Formats: sequence, structure tokens, C-alpha cells
Amino acid sequence: MKPIRLGMIGGGNDAFIGGVHRIASRIDGRFQLVAGALSSTAEKSKASGAALGLAEDRCYGDFTEMAKREARLKDGVEAVAIVTPNHVHYPAAREFLKRGIHVICDKPLTSTLADAKKLVAAAEKSDALFVLTHNYTGYPMVRQAREMVRQGDIGNVRVVQVEYPQDWLTDPVEADGSKQAEWRTDPERSGAGGCVGDIGTHAYNLARFVTGLQLESLAADLTTFVEGRRLDDNVHVMLRFDGGAKGMLWSSQVAPGNENGLRLRVYGDKGGLEWAQEDPNYLWFTPFGEPKRLLTRNGAGATAGNQGASRIPPGHPEGYLEGFANIYNEAADLIVAARDGKMPDHLLPTVQDGLEGVAFIDACVRSSKRDAAWVKL
Amino acid sequence: MKPIRLGMIGGGNDAFIGGVHRIASRIDGRFQLVAGALSSTAEKSKASGAALGLAEDRCYGDFTEMAKREARLKDGVEAVAIVTPNHVHYPAAREFLKRGIHVICDKPLTSTLADAKKLVAAAEKSDALFVLTHNYTGYPMVRQAREMVRQGDIGNVRVVQVEYPQDWLTDPVEADGSKQAEWRTDPERSGAGGCVGDIGTHAYNLARFVTGLQLESLAADLTTFVEGRRLDDNVHVMLRFDGGAKGMLWSSQVAPGNENGLRLRVYGDKGGLEWAQEDPNYLWFTPFGEPKRLLTRNGAGATAGNQGASRIPPGHPEGYLEGFANIYNEAADLIVAARDGKMPDHLLPTVQDGLEGVAFIDACVRSSKRDAAWVKL
Amino acid sequence: MKPIRLGMIGGGNDAFIGGVHRIASRIDGRFQLVAGALSSTAEKSKASGAALGLAEDRCYGDFTEMAKREARLKDGVEAVAIVTPNHVHYPAAREFLKRGIHVICDKPLTSTLADAKKLVAAAEKSDALFVLTHNYTGYPMVRQAREMVRQGDIGNVRVVQVEYPQDWLTDPVEADGSKQAEWRTDPERSGAGGCVGDIGTHAYNLARFVTGLQLESLAADLTTFVEGRRLDDNVHVMLRFDGGAKGMLWSSQVAPGNENGLRLRVYGDKGGLEWAQEDPNYLWFTPFGEPKRLLTRNGAGATAGNQGASRIPPGHPEGYLEGFANIYNEAADLIVAARDGKMPDHLLPTVQDGLEGVAFIDACVRSSKRDAAWVKL
Amino acid sequence: MKPIRLGMIGGGNDAFIGGVHRIASRIDGRFQLVAGALSSTAEKSKASGAALGLAEDRCYGDFTEMAKREARLKDGVEAVAIVTPNHVHYPAAREFLKRGIHVICDKPLTSTLADAKKLVAAAEKSDALFVLTHNYTGYPMVRQAREMVRQGDIGNVRVVQVEYPQDWLTDPVEADGSKQAEWRTDPERSGAGGCVGDIGTHAYNLARFVTGLQLESLAADLTTFVEGRRLDDNVHVMLRFDGGAKGMLWSSQVAPGNENGLRLRVYGDKGGLEWAQEDPNYLWFTPFGEPKRLLTRNGAGATAGNQGASRIPPGHPEGYLEGFANIYNEAADLIVAARDGKMPDHLLPTVQDGLEGVAFIDACVRSSKRDAAWVKL
Repeated sequence: MKPIRLGMIGGGNDAFIGGVHRIASRIDGRFQLVAGALSSTAEKSKASGAALGLAEDRCYGDFTEMAKREARLKDGVEAVAIVTPNHVHYPAAREFLKRGIHVICDKPLTSTLADAKKLVAAAEKSDALFVLTHNYTGYPMVRQAREMVRQGDIGNVRVVQVEYPQDWLTDPVEADGSKQAEWRTDPERSGAGGCVGDIGTHAYNLARFVTGLQLESLAADLTTFVEGRRLDDNVHVMLRFDGGAKGMLWSSQVAPGNENGLRLRVYGDKGGLEWAQEDPNYLWFTPFGEPKRLLTRNGAGATAGNQGASRIPPGHPEGYLEGFANIYNEAADLIVAARDGKMPDHLLPTVQDGLEGVAFIDACVRSSKRDAAWVKL
Repeated sequence: MKPIRLGMIGGGNDAFIGGVHRIASRIDGRFQLVAGALSSTAEKSKASGAALGLAEDRCYGDFTEMAKREARLKDGVEAVAIVTPNHVHYPAAREFLKRGIHVICDKPLTSTLADAKKLVAAAEKSDALFVLTHNYTGYPMVRQAREMVRQGDIGNVRVVQVEYPQDWLTDPVEADGSKQAEWRTDPERSGAGGCVGDIGTHAYNLARFVTGLQLESLAADLTTFVEGRRLDDNVHVMLRFDGGAKGMLWSSQVAPGNENGLRLRVYGDKGGLEWAQEDPNYLWFTPFGEPKRLLTRNGAGATAGNQGASRIPPGHPEGYLEGFANIYNEAADLIVAARDGKMPDHLLPTVQDGLEGVAFIDACVRSSKRDAAWVKL
Repeated sequence: MKPIRLGMIGGGNDAFIGGVHRIASRIDGRFQLVAGALSSTAEKSKASGAALGLAEDRCYGDFTEMAKREARLKDGVEAVAIVTPNHVHYPAAREFLKRGIHVICDKPLTSTLADAKKLVAAAEKSDALFVLTHNYTGYPMVRQAREMVRQGDIGNVRVVQVEYPQDWLTDPVEADGSKQAEWRTDPERSGAGGCVGDIGTHAYNLARFVTGLQLESLAADLTTFVEGRRLDDNVHVMLRFDGGAKGMLWSSQVAPGNENGLRLRVYGDKGGLEWAQEDPNYLWFTPFGEPKRLLTRNGAGATAGNQGASRIPPGHPEGYLEGFANIYNEAADLIVAARDGKMPDHLLPTVQDGLEGVAFIDACVRSSKRDAAWVKL
Repeated sequence: MKPIRLGMIGGGNDAFIGGVHRIASRIDGRFQLVAGALSSTAEKSKASGAALGLAEDRCYGDFTEMAKREARLKDGVEAVAIVTPNHVHYPAAREFLKRGIHVICDKPLTSTLADAKKLVAAAEKSDALFVLTHNYTGYPMVRQAREMVRQGDIGNVRVVQVEYPQDWLTDPVEADGSKQAEWRTDPERSGAGGCVGDIGTHAYNLARFVTGLQLESLAADLTTFVEGRRLDDNVHVMLRFDGGAKGMLWSSQVAPGNENGLRLRVYGDKGGLEWAQEDPNYLWFTPFGEPKRLLTRNGAGATAGNQGASRIPPGHPEGYLEGFANIYNEAADLIVAARDGKMPDHLLPTVQDGLEGVAFIDACVRSSKRDAAWVKL
């Protein structure tokens, strides 16, 4: 089967997440990168593209130009990955969606709620797919956790504890030449949420994905600890879900000793589930009143979703890139199905999930401004 | 050196914490149990006392009677341990304090804020000591954590995450004959806080002890998940400390898979510290920008406080009972010193800490009633 | 019930294990230390005894003198704890056993196989009890592991991996004033085995206790890594058990980063069990083909032996001292029963276990001298 | 840069390791699979090839035919991956090597020592590269461990403990239709070693790679626990290295609860290192006398080799496939360099490492037959 022709918006030199998307798209051999608007000038884009083996005439300095030309090419891109800073997501996605080119877009969906709504409209109007890379949902044990909640293994969910601490912004590195830190702490490019937008939204999405619960309201206390920083770097949120479950979300970029400590714990009236991103091949399950069990990726007791998201037998760890690749792999399934006008059931994060995420960020910012008052979603 | 003559109020058959106090008082050989008002009738008290080897005439059915008589005996008790349900703490302590008998009292201090204030007054008026058994502060690694914060190893504290999940009240066991559950979910005996009073207050005290920070305000969302239960069984609190640090506290008695998951994480601008009660011989320390270090009880890098609270070399775990015994051991030091009219520096939880704990419970309950509004302390 | 009157041989100032025995004897309140030959001179013995609150005339400079006098006293010791260097175990035990005084003795049984055999004879001839403090067998999860093997939870045992690494002898500290290191590396006082006698024998005993398997033969490679050291400091042994199970034993005192890393793993044709002394409240159990389970002290799925060896609910860790105290507590049961001429079933290590341990050391030394040839036991 | 044209020998349907090699070759985009002798008949090979997107005329039923034809093609394969059962490694490699086509070959090198020696000769005579996929050496933390040993961080190595337990052969699944189990327990296809060849050799290679030590002699006790099995399923080996270090190696396929528990611990006179394959992003380092440190992939304290083998920042776990891909990636570097007649320094396992591995297997089998006598290497 021929690989799907992929383009990339953003992801030139120095970009972290662009490289991740490229590896993720390659792991299962379903995509081939053939074009890109990798940087904001044609020259830089060509330089980055050359290093990636792209033909010079498929390297663009402008995503609109790229969308227009690729749409006309016989072998033009079938899908694009958008891996720019957040404020570019909407305008870039729009150009491709309206030309029927599938979009795989990094999170959060957009830098503003207004843009998010416009992007939802654009996606709904388009025949093309829109996939948001909330990549943590691609981990096999996260899939298993979701299935176990759905099939009632922990009963009715009561308590949801989710957290995502990091430490890389402990010092004001954005003033010190770190490009990654620069745009992520810049409200023009990131939006009104700093830590809450960058990683709080991942934590929120993970809790939503696994529990299936809808957030009813939240009370958020956002803090900027580093002097001179323009956005929050620590996020405390109390959560109330439809149906009565309660939760807490903590995300931080100033917690020394934490690399990417995304961790979810869900407790119901019949059991509990615990998962940590840094040790992703494990899922702890306690049926209430029985010993705790250590479930493993593709191991004994693996659900269909765990198995289906695994490539190799248990005990040989799969990691972040494989979880990310699962999103790409399933996007490829949808793209192939779409050729025949079909849209099978899937678990991929959609533009609606993206809107929810931006609404979550927006609600956190609003709540925090009102001294952590409860805000409905 | 002769052991200190100890009495016990509460702690008859079926009591959990009474047995713990007895073991803790024995481990270092500094106390000898000689009298008790172990139950609410003379008969039951004598039965429990006989099993403990107490002389029949030193077993009382009433703590006031006991206080009166023991105070007159030549070899009467020098100190008493109060291990009753919370509402008895104040009236019992009062009787002994006013007769100059030292009091070692379980937490929380009292079941009401009014009682707590009266007990503070009683303790201040008395020549006798009052020690509150916030036993977790007796763990060697907790002592080390406190010292490291004080000596600046993690810089200025920014974020404090503390939690104490359990699962034993997942089902309505108080309706099913569990005496432990019965009084702990009964507002008459426990006070207005359920989970927040029973274990939330431990978590709060631990955070205070280690960081030295004063709580400025809190916003609490208390929940009762189990139908028919009369007190909260899950506690979510956002914390603001004097000086700008922020925190979260979660305690729960309905989180399946958690036995006694007390855990503290403190992050400053120079490093982080992480400790978990279930693995108490370890303390994780990350100087920002360096690899994480695993500090151990009495091991390499142990501070004076860690060494002083340890009995045996590293690698042979000490546990909950030894941490508890450290409180007793240090109380013995104070009692001996008090004989000479001295009062050395010490780290033992005082009646003031007890008042703070009850004020914390009270603030949580008030905040929660006002939809988690911020409440000053 | 009156505590049992206990004497101690050895355990003066600077001794590690004497202090452990004293705490262990106190935890459950069954013993009271009343006499001792704590040091080799009457003067030192009195000094140590005074610090422990012993009457001056019960502090002896000689264990024979002590045995003679205490045997005649109306309130003389009922039992003694022998906590001297190994070469004193036999002569000391003999004096008490022949006078009908119970003996609780540290391991290994003796410093030579000849002495071990004599001690067996002495114990068999005596009406008094002889208990060897292979204290690790007192841990609740070790008790559970033994029960699970017996009841077939892992099927027929095939593989036994046991290890006990430490690091405190990485440097030649015996030449540097460490008294602990001095006698433990001295063949006159320790016997022909260094590391193998000090901790290898613990590992061996633990494997025996849990699996119930008899060792058929072994091949041992003992090494002295530290220049000038007189005994082995690293032990590699291959094991063959009756019935066909195989195993490996590693103990070391030169493995940096290991405090007291005693660890046992047992695999049968139906499942596996894994336990580590430094985290003693956990036991890992895998029924073959099912997820691994984390069993806890006194927690869900606890066997009778686990529960019976626990004092407090799960989640509040018990440690080394409580495991040790279980040996004392059960010895107290036997001593009380012996007053009535009874000897109930028990799990305490006996003089026969001690002989086995010394035979194990002897076999290791012999095998190693013959280039790790197989030696029968 | 154009990807390197890759062929594959073996790896048709049902094969585990073929799929792993394909993913590993794709992750960094340096190879493109264009041809294959995926199965032993042309028909099956075409079927497997079609599923992989290979052109029909590049799917062969015979590796010799493939070698001949591809060598003549203008766009023939530049390299082949050999992923067959062991006994095919040599004949297949020979055909490609003699035609100047690079070979990337799975381990162990061959099924017999005689074949191994012939393959060494063939590789030495050829201008083409020969790379053996001892993939665990590709893990970033393994690279760091090797560098730390070399730079003296743990001093002179004294003790090496390595193990690789699995449990998938606990039952006689080879008699029950498992193709993986079938050939791995068949001496005709695997060679004289079962577990020792399949995973013992990985453990040995890892110890060699990290410590740099040469094995001087070994004493091996190989066991077949499962009735009717034709090769060993449990391996106990004592090791003596040049220079005096000692070690133990345990590998097992009948240890329930172990998935792929490869684990290495190395202790020197200045410190210790510990690494476990199932949690590969961590490396534990203890400088003797200091607290243990948790080093992470690409994290604080990462060496050049750790960084160079990492794709993404710390805290986002890389796994088995990325470690494997590092071997492919570095092979690509060599292949590209070879085009210019260069051969840069590298860490890839060579045909000599392969010979060492087969010699290790052979020595284990010989020793075991002689009742675990010491055998020189």
C-alpha cells in the first residue's frame, strides 16, 4: 500500500514537536513527508526541507501558497501536519481544510476561543478530516484505562486526580535565548494560558478521555512564580464533573525534579486506576477489597484497545513516540477509509475535543481572574 | 533510669490507636503503663487493663476519678496518653493538666474550635506538658526534609502538594458494625470534619512542619460520596501561604487502592523534595538542574535530625511505630527535663499546632459551605 | 501478665545488634531486661548496665558467673539473649542451657561446625528452649510467602534467586577503627566465612524458610576484593535443591549503593513470588498468565501468617524491628507454654536451622577452596 | 538525503523480530525496504511482501537468488537485514557479504561455533559491513553506563550481576502451536543453547559492552525444567573476568512474572551502576558513600553517548524500538561513510562480538555437560 503524502507546517530547525511528528508519521510506514512550509521564509524552509530530503519546489515559505499549489498538484499532499506555535493553527488549518486536505494539528487547538470556534466551523464545513494530536491518548495503557472505566471495572467514578508537573521553566529561560520557552510564555503566540495551555490542557484531555466525564465547572488558581514571566507557570484547579464526580488538576513548569510527570488517578465506587506517563507501559488497577494489580502493555489481562495500540510483546517498552505514532496510524486508517467515503468509529481527538480544550483554558483564565471563582463550562 | 509512669485514657479493646500508643511508649523503654481509664465503665476498663497487666485498682471507669486519685498517689502517673474519640480530648486533658500531669494527646486536638481554644488556655495555665501526636513528624526523613527546607536546599518554596488518600470508607461500613468507622463519621464525636479532621489535618500538619510556611487562606470543596454518611469522605483544598507559595491538599477515604497514601511534595526555586509515608525510609531530593537523589534513613547525606530520629543503620527499614515512638521518646526527654524545671528546644507538636489543626478543619468546613470560597486563617 | 525476665550476653556500648535485640524484646511488652554480661569485664558491664537501668549486682563480667548466680536467684533470668561475636555463642549458650535457662541467640549459630554440633547436643539435652534470631523470617510478608508456597500458589518450585548485597565493607574499614568491621572480618571471632557467614547465611535461611526446600549441593566462589581483608567479602553460589529446583545466591559487602538488599525470588510452574527486605511490607505475586499482584502487610489477600505477624492495619509500614520483635514475641509464647510443659507448633528458627546455616557456610568455604566444585550438604 | 535501499531475509507473517527490524529501520527515515526473501517459498514471500508494499518482482523465495539478482540491479539493495532463525544466519549472510552488500543480522550470530568462525572469515574478506543487532546496546542509558565505567566513575569493577528472566516458556507451548517457541527450542534451528542462546547471550553481551571486561572463564548450570523440551530453559552461570572481577548471569524463560527482565548491576571500588531494560530511561548511579542518583535519558548529567542516542527531551520515554533504531541509524552512518571508503569509530556490535557470543553459548553448554566445571573462553 502506498504511503499517504504528507506536508508539514512549521517544524523547521530548532523545533521540538516537528521532529516528533515526523518520527511518529514514519514509525508505521503509512506516511511519506513530501512537502512543507517549515519556516516563515522560503529560504529557511528550503534549508530545513533539504535536510529532510524534500524536493526544493515542495518547500514553501508560506502555508497559503503551499495549500494553493499542493491542491493543484497531481501528487500533492493528502494531509498536512500543523506543528507551529498555537496562534498559527487556525489560519493554517483553514487553508488546507477548505481545499479538502486532511489536517493533523498539534494542541491546543488555537490561541483564542474565537479562533477555536472558527476552526470548528471550518472543519465541519470541510470534507477533510481534522485530527488533534492529544498524543497521550495514544498510549496503550491509556486505551485500556478508558475501556476499563467504560466496562464498569471501577464502578461509578467519584474522584479524578490528574497532574502534569515539569521543571524546565523554573528559571526565566525565555529571557535567556530558549526559543521553546520564548513562544510558550508569549501570550501573542500561545494565547492567554501559559502552563495551563501547554500542559494543563493535556492533563484535562487525558482525564476526559479516560473517564468519559463532562466537566461541569471549575475553580482555578493560576500563578506566575518567575518574575517577569508573562503567563502562568503553575496551575491549581478544582474540578466538578457532571454526575457528581470531583477532581483536582495540577500542572506546573516550576517543579524541580519533574520532567514530564503527567499522571492520572481515577477512583470509583468499585475500584481505582492509576497511570503515569513516564512509566507508560504500566497501569495499576485495584478492584476494591482486592490486591492491586500491575497491568502491562500487551500483557496478561490486556484489553483489545491495549493490544491494538501495541506493536510488540510485553516487557519491551514502547514509549512516547509509539503512542504518538498510534495517532498517526489511526489517522491513516481514517484517511484511507475517507477515500471510499467512509468514516469508521475511532478514538482520535477531534476538533470538538480541541474546542473543549480551549474552552477549558479560557475558563481557567477567567476563574483565576475572579479569585478562583467557580466557572461553568 | 526509671521509666516514666504512664496512664492511658481510652484505648480499650477494639481500639486501633490505643495499641499504637502503647507500642510507641514501649519501644525505647522510657515509659511504663501503670494505670488507665481504658473504657467508659469500670468493668470494661478493668477487663482491658487486666489484659495489659495493670493492677486492678489502677483501672478506672472515669477519667476524672482517675486524675483525682492518681494525683494523690505517691507513685501516681506522671503522664497520660489520651486516645479517645476527639470529643473527649478536651475534658480529659483538662483534668490532668490542672493537676500537673503531663498529657500526650492524639489528634485532632478537639472536636470543636471552642474546645480547642479552651484546651490551649488549660495547657498554658498548667505546668505540665501537652504533646499532640502528629506522629508523621516523627519520621526521620520528614525531619530531614524540614531541615533541608530550613537550610535553603530548595530555595524559596513555591509549590506544596500534599495528599492523604485511603480507601477504607469506600463502602458505608459505619452502618455495618465497624466501630472505627462509626465514631469517625459521627459529628458528635469527631466534630464537623470527617475525612478532613481524621487525615486532612495530618496532611496539613505535615506540610506546615516541613515547609515552616503559615497558611494564609484556603478554598475547600468537601464531598460526601457515600450515601447516608454524615461527614465528608473526600477533601479538595487549594492553599495560599504567607509569602506567596501555593498548594493543594487532597485527602480521601474513598480512593480504592490507597491504604495510607500520605505524600508530600515541596518545590522551591532551587530544588524539590518528595516523600511518601508508605515508603518512609526514602526522601527524594532534586537540586534543580541536577539528577534526582534518593536519600535514606540514617544513610549517606543524612542530616542531624534524620540521624537523631533513627535507631538502626540504613537499609533496615524503620516504620510507623518507630516514627510514633520518636514522639514518645522526645516527650520523655521533655518530661525528664521538666523535673529540673527546664524546657529544651524540641520539635514536638504542641497545643498551638493542635489549635491550628482544628482551625484548619473549621476553615475547610466554612469554605466548603460557601461553595469553596476563600477563607482566611 | 508479668513480663519474662531476660538477661543479655554481649550488647554493651558500640554494639549494633544488642540494641536491636533490646528493642525487639520490648515492643510487645513480653520481656523485661533484668541482668546482663554485657561486656567482657565487670566494670564495663556495669557501665553499660547502668545506662540500661540494670541493678548493679545483676551486671556480670562473665557469662558463666552470671549463669551460675542467676540460676540460683529466686527472680533470676528465665531467658537470655546472646548477642556476642559468633565464637562466643556456643560456650555462652551451653552455660545457660544446662541450667534450664532459655536461650535466644543471634546468628550464625557458631563460628565452627564442631561448635555447632556441640550446641545442638547441648540444646537437645536441655529442657530449655533454643531460638535462633534469623529475624527476617519474622516479617509478615515472608510468612505469607511461605504459606503461599506451601498451599501450592506457585506450584512446584523450579528456580530460587536470593541475594543480600551491602556496601559497608567497600573500603578496608576494619583497619580504620570500625569495631563492627573488625570482628566480622576476623576468622577467630567470625569463623571461616566472612560475608557468607554474616549475611549469606541469612539469604540461605530465608530461601529455605520460604520454599521449604532442602539444599542438595552447592558450588561456591568466595572472593576477597579488599586487599588485606582476612575473610571473603563477596559470595557467588549456585544451588541445587532436593527435587530438582535450582538457584543462585549472591551476597556481597562491596556493592556500592546497597544498604541491606536482601531479596528473594521464587518461581514455580504455576507462579512467582518476589520480596525485598528494604520494602518489606510488599510481596509480589504472579499467578502464571495473570497480572502481577502487589500483596501488602495485613492488606487484602493477607494470609493468617501475615495477619498474625502484623500489629497495625496496612499502609502504615512495620519494619525491621517489628519483624525482629515477632521472633521475641513468639519465643515468649513458647516460654509461657513451656512453663506448663507444652511445646506448641511454631515457626521459630531452631538450633537445627542454626546447624544447617553453619553447614552451609562450611560447604561454601570448602567448595570455594576446591575452585567452586560441587559439595553435598 | 536518499534512504538506503534495504532488503530483508526472513520476517514474513507471524515473525516477531522481522517487524521490529522494519520499524527500527523506519524510525529515523534512513532506510527504505525494497526487497525481501521473507519466507521460504516464493509464494509466501510475495504474500508477505505485498502486505509491506514491496514490488512483486523484488519478493524472493530464496536468499541466494535474491542476492544474485539484487547485486545486478541498478537499484538493488545496499543492505539486508537477516531476521531468520539462527541456523540461516551464516548461509544467508555469506551470499550478501560476498557480493558487497551490507548485512545487519539478528543475534546470536549463528547456531554453531563452526558457522560463527566461517562468518567471521566471510565478513573479514568482504568490503561490506556486518552489524549484529545486540539492540540493548542501543539504549541511551546503556551508552551512558559504558561511558561512566570508562571514565572511572565507579572505579575498578569488582562485581557484575546480570540477568534476563522471562516467563513465556513456563508451559510447553512449543508443543502447542507457538511458532516462536517451536524454533527457539529446536536445536536444529537454534543451536545447542536454548535460553542461553536466545537471551543469555544478550545478557552476556550487555555486561561486556558496559564493563569492557573480557570473560576469562565460566561455570554454567543449564537446566531444562519443562518436560520434553529439547533445550535449556534456565541458565545459571558464574563468571570470572580478566583482571579479577567476578559475576553471575541468570537467564530464564520459566520465571512467572517476568516479561523481559534484562537487568545489569556493576559494582566497582568507587561506585555502582544499575539498569533495567523494562524501565530503560533510568540509570541508577551511586558514588560510594553518597546518595544514589537517578540519571535519566537526555536529562541532567547525561553523557554525550546518552544525548547522542536520544531523540527527544527527558521525561518522554523512548523505548525498545528507539534503542533498536539507534543500531540502524548508526549502521546508516557507517554505510554512508563506506560509500566514501571511510569507516569511522562506532559502538555497533560487530561480527567479532557475534563470535564471542556464540563462544559464550558454546562454553556454557560444555561447562554444563561437565557438571558446571570451569571452562576458559
